[in-house]
Amino acid sequence: MQKFIYLFGGTKNEGNAGMKNLLGGKGANLAEMGTLGIPVPPGFTITTEMCTYYYANKKKYPQGFQESVLKAVSYVEKETGMKFGDTANPLLFSVRSGARSSMPGMMETVLNVGLTTKTREGLARKTSNPRFVYDSHRRLIQMYSDVVMEKAAGLEPAEGKGIRQQLEKEMHKMKVAKGYKLDTDLTAEDLRQLIEIYKAKVKEVLGVAFPDDPVKQLMGAIGAVFSSWNGRRAISYRRIEGIPDEWGTAVNVQAMVFGNMGDTSATGVAFTRSPSTGDQHFYGEWLPNAQGEDVVAGIRTPNPINETTRSELSKGLPSLEKAMAKTYKELDAIQRRLEKHYRDMLDIEFTIQEGRLWMLQCRVGKRNGPAAVKMAVDMCKEKMITKEEAVMRVSPSQLDELLHPILDPAAEAATAPIAKGLPAGPGGACGQIVFSAADAVAWAKEGKKVILVREETNPEDIEGMRAAVAVLTARGGMTSHAALVARGWGKCCIVGAGALHIDYASRVMTVDGRSFKEGDSFSMNGSKGYVYEGTLPMKKAAEENPDFNAFMKLCDQIRTIGVRTNADTPDDASRARAFGAEGIGLFRIEHMFYGKGSEEPLFKLRKMIVSGNEKERRSALAELFPHCKSDIKGTLKAMNGLPVTIRTMDPPLHEFIPTREEEREKLAQSMSISAEEFNKRADSLHESNPMMGHRGVRLGVTYPEITEMQVRAIFEAAAELTREGKKPLPEIMIPVVCVETELKNQLAIVEKVYGEVLAKFKMKKIPYLFGTMIEIPRATLVADRIASIAQFFSYGTNDLTQMSFGFSRDDVGGFLNDYIEKKIIPEDPFATIDKDGVGRLVKVGIDLGRGMRPDLKVGVCGEHGGDPASVKFFARAGMNYVSCSPFRVPIARLAAAQVAVEIAKEKAAAAKPVAAKSKAKKPAPKKGKK
Amino acid sequence: MQKFIYLFGGTKNEGNAGMKNLLGGKGANLAEMGTLGIPVPPGFTITTEMCTYYYANKKKYPQGFQESVLKAVSYVEKETGMKFGDTANPLLFSVRSGARSSMPGMMETVLNVGLTTKTREGLARKTSNPRFVYDSHRRLIQMYSDVVMEKAAGLEPAEGKGIRQQLEKEMHKMKVAKGYKLDTDLTAEDLRQLIEIYKAKVKEVLGVAFPDDPVKQLMGAIGAVFSSWNGRRAISYRRIEGIPDEWGTAVNVQAMVFGNMGDTSATGVAFTRSPSTGDQHFYGEWLPNAQGEDVVAGIRTPNPINETTRSELSKGLPSLEKAMAKTYKELDAIQRRLEKHYRDMLDIEFTIQEGRLWMLQCRVGKRNGPAAVKMAVDMCKEKMITKEEAVMRVSPSQLDELLHPILDPAAEAATAPIAKGLPAGPGGACGQIVFSAADAVAWAKEGKKVILVREETNPEDIEGMRAAVAVLTARGGMTSHAALVARGWGKCCIVGAGALHIDYASRVMTVDGRSFKEGDSFSMNGSKGYVYEGTLPMKKAAEENPDFNAFMKLCDQIRTIGVRTNADTPDDASRARAFGAEGIGLFRIEHMFYGKGSEEPLFKLRKMIVSGNEKERRSALAELFPHCKSDIKGTLKAMNGLPVTIRTMDPPLHEFIPTREEEREKLAQSMSISAEEFNKRADSLHESNPMMGHRGVRLGVTYPEITEMQVRAIFEAAAELTREGKKPLPEIMIPVVCVETELKNQLAIVEKVYGEVLAKFKMKKIPYLFGTMIEIPRATLVADRIASIAQFFSYGTNDLTQMSFGFSRDDVGGFLNDYIEKKIIPEDPFATIDKDGVGRLVKVGIDLGRGMRPDLKVGVCGEHGGDPASVKFFARAGMNYVSCSPFRVPIARLAAAQVAVEIAKEKAAAAKPVAAKSKAKKPAPKKGKK
Repeated sequence: MQKFIYLFGGTKNEGNAGMKNLLGGKGANLAEMGTLGIPVPPGFTITTEMCTYYYANKKKYPQGFQESVLKAVSYVEKETGMKFGDTANPLLFSVRSGARSSMPGMMETVLNVGLTTKTREGLARKTSNPRFVYDSHRRLIQMYSDVVMEKAAGLEPAEGKGIRQQLEKEMHKMKVAKGYKLDTDLTAEDLRQLIEIYKAKVKEVLGVAFPDDPVKQLMGAIGAVFSSWNGRRAISYRRIEGIPDEWGTAVNVQAMVFGNMGDTSATGVAFTRSPSTGDQHFYGEWLPNAQGEDVVAGIRTPNPINETTRSELSKGLPSLEKAMAKTYKELDAIQRRLEKHYRDMLDIEFTIQEGRLWMLQCRVGKRNGPAAVKMAVDMCKEKMITKEEAVMRVSPSQLDELLHPILDPAAEAATAPIAKGLPAGPGGACGQIVFSAADAVAWAKEGKKVILVREETNPEDIEGMRAAVAVLTARGGMTSHAALVARGWGKCCIVGAGALHIDYASRVMTVDGRSFKEGDSFSMNGSKGYVYEGTLPMKKAAEENPDFNAFMKLCDQIRTIGVRTNADTPDDASRARAFGAEGIGLFRIEHMFYGKGSEEPLFKLRKMIVSGNEKERRSALAELFPHCKSDIKGTLKAMNGLPVTIRTMDPPLHEFIPTREEEREKLAQSMSISAEEFNKRADSLHESNPMMGHRGVRLGVTYPEITEMQVRAIFEAAAELTREGKKPLPEIMIPVVCVETELKNQLAIVEKVYGEVLAKFKMKKIPYLFGTMIEIPRATLVADRIASIAQFFSYGTNDLTQMSFGFSRDDVGGFLNDYIEKKIIPEDPFATIDKDGVGRLVKVGIDLGRGMRPDLKVGVCGEHGGDPASVKFFARAGMNYVSCSPFRVPIARLAAAQVAVEIAKEKAAAAKPVAAKSKAKKPAPKKGKK
Repeated sequence: MQKFIYLFGGTKNEGNAGMKNLLGGKGANLAEMGTLGIPVPPGFTITTEMCTYYYANKKKYPQGFQESVLKAVSYVEKETGMKFGDTANPLLFSVRSGARSSMPGMMETVLNVGLTTKTREGLARKTSNPRFVYDSHRRLIQMYSDVVMEKAAGLEPAEGKGIRQQLEKEMHKMKVAKGYKLDTDLTAEDLRQLIEIYKAKVKEVLGVAFPDDPVKQLMGAIGAVFSSWNGRRAISYRRIEGIPDEWGTAVNVQAMVFGNMGDTSATGVAFTRSPSTGDQHFYGEWLPNAQGEDVVAGIRTPNPINETTRSELSKGLPSLEKAMAKTYKELDAIQRRLEKHYRDMLDIEFTIQEGRLWMLQCRVGKRNGPAAVKMAVDMCKEKMITKEEAVMRVSPSQLDELLHPILDPAAEAATAPIAKGLPAGPGGACGQIVFSAADAVAWAKEGKKVILVREETNPEDIEGMRAAVAVLTARGGMTSHAALVARGWGKCCIVGAGALHIDYASRVMTVDGRSFKEGDSFSMNGSKGYVYEGTLPMKKAAEENPDFNAFMKLCDQIRTIGVRTNADTPDDASRARAFGAEGIGLFRIEHMFYGKGSEEPLFKLRKMIVSGNEKERRSALAELFPHCKSDIKGTLKAMNGLPVTIRTMDPPLHEFIPTREEEREKLAQSMSISAEEFNKRADSLHESNPMMGHRGVRLGVTYPEITEMQVRAIFEAAAELTREGKKPLPEIMIPVVCVETELKNQLAIVEKVYGEVLAKFKMKKIPYLFGTMIEIPRATLVADRIASIAQFFSYGTNDLTQMSFGFSRDDVGGFLNDYIEKKIIPEDPFATIDKDGVGRLVKVGIDLGRGMRPDLKVGVCGEHGGDPASVKFFARAGMNYVSCSPFRVPIARLAAAQVAVEIAKEKAAAAKPVAAKSKAKKPAPKKGKK
């Protein structure tokens, strides 16, 4: 028979920390500790492969399985000197789950297995504590009848009718009858009686007697743990965490040790460093005369493990360091040794039974963002880990925690969201809701924190969005107007919260039948997309953090692709440079007109858009020119010496037409046309599907004068800066290209204007590149021809995703959540690049493009440029850089570093001889192991 | 030196009919006739390669070129017994262009080259006709000074100031002075004087003397012909006809023969069969004592060539058959021999000089649609050509002529269009314009022919569109609503005529500043996209035409891919079956609700769309079910034994919301909801980009009950028909799929309902297929996974084009014309598939799909299925069938046959040994050549 059982603790430790897939995390680490000679109660692990077998064979075990279990039991008997089922010196077991990755509380545990009417008497004698033994027996029956006899048997009693509740009712009855208040008031004799009542109740309710046989109990408990792998909670946890169903759980059967055997016994949990700050102190909690669950349950305030980490709350409580000085020293030595061995911060569990220390668990500890960054940096300094390892130790979302204030996670956990939407802008925010941009501005002026709530936003809302602390919309996807703008500012934003119904007229919003009016307070978690009623407490963003800067330096040393930013104003550019951006990957000319203090430039842009003929248009363009040039110049200057990719205008025309009558009239007047004529022109700009309409290069082709003005602004700005001794590096980028002739057409304009500007400034050369966005699916398919003209490609993966899927980013909210819930698609393709589809087009385009022009520079400037999984994909696809919102720049730098490490690892693995690879199942002991 | 000159006529014929690329059509055919021993005035052809050389070398010839020309001249001298520049027996030349494909009238010709003050006297003596000789001399000066000295020199005189006009003025002056009315009143002496006046004028105006030297004249004329290849007219003709600039023209220098040397001389043009009917009669026109241009110029009514083909117009005129019986017989024998030799209807030109017949030209004759079909069928019957050749003899647009009434081409040629748009529905129509669907219906009821003019159409306009003889819109592309519907009905339609500005309120439309009011008459050519003012004469569609049917049979014998139709009602299905459709490739469930006599089903569909929850929706669906089932049943019945691909609903939701208040109220009432609630729901259906919104399978995923109802209708209809002894073959097609999981989701519904229907009808099996539309770019990239579930693919190339280009088909009108004019794209990609981009996706999808499922059935059901070039592409890409509008079915059958012939030819060519291929430049003589 295949080896399904691995011994640990004592003399035999058949597993090791590298065998998590087979033994689960807990089992693998118990064996590892055993090997290190650290005291671990002996036991054995039944493999995850047995779990797989169990489910593949209708919940049956292979022949001879029970015999193998009993053989392992006798190993434990030998190691402990106790005997399973013995009346004098009975061995008891804990039976626990243990999957590859931790699923805390999601599966079942059965303690005290082996306690029967016979064995309990021996134990009572041995411990001289009959009350403790009867209580343990009572607990076993209560737990076992629930977990093994009811749940694992697939029974589903009505609410409140479960066996556990019925047994608890019996205990309650007895307490009432005897006039007791607390469980602990029950005497040993009371408990003995209660056990009999329990047994009768179990028989009555479940129709089966509680097994008074140790082996039956053990086999039942093992089956219950395996069964709990497919319990409802476990399944839904796996869904959320993305853990595959086929992994299965291992089962750890371990000799029970008791922390509740009097004052020389204790139990505790600890971390080798602080999981919330990363400080290098042994940190933990303990309780004397208690079992493990008592520490976790939070009924008793736990004691501090040592004097150093004593908190406000545990001021008057005894530390283990003082209370059990010798054992503490032993424990401290073990934790130090373990951290060094594992080369990471560990989360450990221990029990002290009558003065003897036992380690029950050790695993890599969970940590928050700031702690993760600090520990990575510290451990690297301590030479405990390499810089590559340091970089892999921080997840992008942990890094993101450092960049934004967030809702207090504890407060959030205790509150149910009133609505959910797409997490469009990160961090948390609290404020009063308003329903118009004008109100947002007005209220903010009064010093109020406001959340702007809209069906969807458009450029007219910009001022209000800027004034608000957060933006919430009922419609739109991850790349809708609101999402794009908010993310660009690093502002908390949730979009597509479909449950919201806003009545602008009455300034009331309804959600699931509940009404909220203007001024009501809301809290938002923009990283998750949750909206809460009321004001939740907040946690500040880590301020100027030296660890953060040190960590980012490590990332920069490792990553191989560049990180630029999307910025539309000189201010944005400066901020992004501070965040480490190595250039601007997307400067959108039309965005410079949004949200300016003065409305003047936007007014002029609108005039240009509603021009009726070339003459009017040229005159409007002439008015726009100085604004355009000055913003471009400011940005080129801010990025002095770094490249700035300037995209020619791609304004969604109809969005720029004001909707308010008075603004329309003002525009009409300034153009000396009638309101009627104005409305006619405005209407003619209406398009059924503007995303696929007259936009981008299409405007440049039909109205060459628009391209001309912009290109002139770019060249003149660059020429003036050069004269001023600066080093501007403009890259002219044409959007929405689908065929190379469009680019040829625009290049002719660029070259003409270039010549004119050179002549005007009496210069010989202005360095610049001419390239294109690749955002139309067709462009990827003819990228070779396009690369014959373009010197660079910048992928616009928002539009590419939009058109490849046929998902309008403004309308996708209507069905995207449904699609993700029904597992039609694994995730929002606007958030993380769709590798199979859109990614394939990206790859095709790069390969064709480089085939034509080997030194073609390729980047991405869609929202995906700031998404870690996407950044990794782009790096592997061979891009030179990614570009993202300023606040995502650090995230992108981290992701770029991580993928560089991953690629190096894969290369190293691929370079290994085949023989080595075939041993993959049993990995070599970790580096640094003694 | 490379061989630039090929002799023909007389004893040496160095070219042949296969050498058109090198010698031009005229030169190649002259050599071919010479080889056949047919009397051709001797001469020589200067090759197109010389034209290329000429332009590549700044309009210079290679060294020794003039010597070669003179050597060829001496060949002609020997053959004719005359001498170039001889005073006694002078040889004169015509110098004509001759490109690969005919460019009638677009390039220059110079006649009588070699006539000088010296040679004319010899000619006058020889012909005893000094007046004729002086007149020829005068014509030479007039033509030569214009074509060679002015045009070829690149001079561009002001309007009316050209040398030709100035010389004509001189002639006019003389006529006035002498009191003459006609040119022919001028005597020989008058002409001699006029020549001197001409010469002086040429010197005065152009500053150069008219060359009185034969060799100078000849070299000048040759240069003028080469120059005319890049004349304005020639260039714009090439643009329109798609002739490449690099082809160049050949020059034919040929001994002059004179049809104007008295009553034994004559000239004529003829066809070996009637070019307008295809009738098998020698058909042509001639004039005694005339030069070639006199016949063509239309100044004199030409005589009929024989008695059989005498027309109303030529009733009293002498036929060549009677007037010159012997020569006619000779000519008739030649034309018979030529037609047999060329195996096609020919267009020939001849001149009779003093009783001697000379052939000046022969080429394959142009013909209209009915003639092309008749000749193809007849020649195949006569075994003159194979059926493969017959099929290649008719172009799709010629076949289309047989299917629709058209505007009289002659009348059209004489009229300028007032507006142009996209040719969305074929054929011609005349009618009075109206601006609303309601008016169209009302006026049509009064028996008026109306043209419905709208900004754009939507489903509410359907009744009006049906009532109108034609539809004209200001907006929209080839696959806009108006275009799709009109084409489906075979109705004349023009869309995207951007110059139109419609004021619905005042019922007036302006075009380029001109106003037209309701009731004004327009004519439309829907095959070209031209709109005319007034009522132009029409030509009827060929009625039941046996030749048409015989021809289609030939096509069907040859083609290898199937042709289905897009039909949405039982009526459409029957009609399409009559047109030869082999099944329905696209039956759109939602279309069955359009344009019904009763509004009831549409009303119910609307109710379903605005349902607020599943219960309401299920109740609306239950009401829709009987309509749905009965239409599906009727269609399956009409197509008994043939497959019917039924697409599940893909309604553009917002389009189905009525805009009129009263209809909205009616709907709200029937649903027992308030008008406010109704409007709220209607508004929530609004999408920014509906083409990429909540549609197709996305509706089926979010509202499974919608799919369920449709699938049940299909299976129940099929079950009932099977019981009635019919053979229904439904194919269920899911639209807008982008990922295989969508299909899996829908298949589960299909299989569930299938089981239920089988149970209900106590049947074991209903044959059906389950497949998908491939219309989303991403779907093509993951077609292998999709094919793991779909049994067939049907490409929706409208949407695929739309999203691959990012061209909204409803908005593309705004820039498409500009794009085509500026040569950004070669043609409308919605009309003809874009091979490089969209086509590549099509191919990728087919290859991936067949890789997964080798027997995957693949078709296309977009508008491209009826476009010949696209059909050919699809056949080559490996599709099993195309599906198109009923009226396009014959076109598709023809295109499918033609591509089969083309592929067979290519295969045969590829199978030839390499040696044969390297001779490709000089093709082997045609099969059947003697």
